[in-house]
Amino acid sequence: MKVEQLGRHILAEFYNCDSDILNDHKLIEKYMTEAAEVANATVVTSNFHMFNPWGVSGVVVIQESHLTIHTWPEYGYASIDLFTCGDEVNPWLSFEYLKEKLKAEKTETEEVSRGLVDRIRKHSNNKHQDIKFKVSV
Amino acid sequence: MKVEQLGRHILAEFYNCDSDILNDHKLIEKYMTEAAEVANATVVTSNFHMFNPWGVSGVVVIQESHLTIHTWPEYGYASIDLFTCGDEVNPWLSFEYLKEKLKAEKTETEEVSRGLVDRIRKHSNNKHQDIKFKVSV
Repeated sequence: MKVEQLGRHILAEFYNCDSDILNDHKLIEKYMTEAAEVANATVVTSNFHMFNPWGVSGVVVIQESHLTIHTWPEYGYASIDLFTCGDEVNPWLSFEYLKEKLKAEKTETEEVSRGLVDRIRKHSNNKHQDIKFKVSV
Repeated sequence: MKVEQLGRHILAEFYNCDSDILNDHKLIEKYMTEAAEVANATVVTSNFHMFNPWGVSGVVVIQESHLTIHTWPEYGYASIDLFTCGDEVNPWLSFEYLKEKLKAEKTETEEVSRGLVDRIRKHSNNKHQDIKFKVSV
């Protein structure tokens, strides 16, 4: 079965990661940017913040959507989103890269279809028929 | 039943919105920032981009996580994520605000629990017991 959709979105829970890495916002930014590149995405910009006393939040805006991360070093936990559009980019490559770099012992993931073409057609009262979908899985 | 979790994440599909609004990155940035404020979030920074020939991508980093949007004005469609931590912030207020401002005729949403406390405990081999969860729904 072929599903036509504009984007694919991986929601990932990373457990029991290396806490020192999760608390290093420079390193997290580096890994997140590299994760975008590994997936064949084009980085537009990135923005990372350190929180007091712990934790890093950050986003990499890519031409094909975004990657985000929020870390709780005190629990070894990180919440990661990998949202990409287009057949040229594979968000699972970002996932595998980050899993290794953050030393996650356990992960849970869910892939969600974003912009399902059938729904866009239906909910626009069939005004938009000529949708050039960018991903088919 | 009380679920202990660090964050809540709304994935929203906006259909048949006003295409002119979806293509106006200044306006989208304004609405997204206001949506953060309406939810009682603290804006850290925001970053928005216009794509050629159509579409806006943007992120509002908030102290309590992030809001993101990707728009396809040519289809009247926008893909929105509202991810917040803490009991003080209500992402559904952002959702309602954006639904009105983007003039979405139809929306679909899913709320996902992020950082479930039981799983963090379990997958850290019970190393992390003293988790101060920030959201209970």
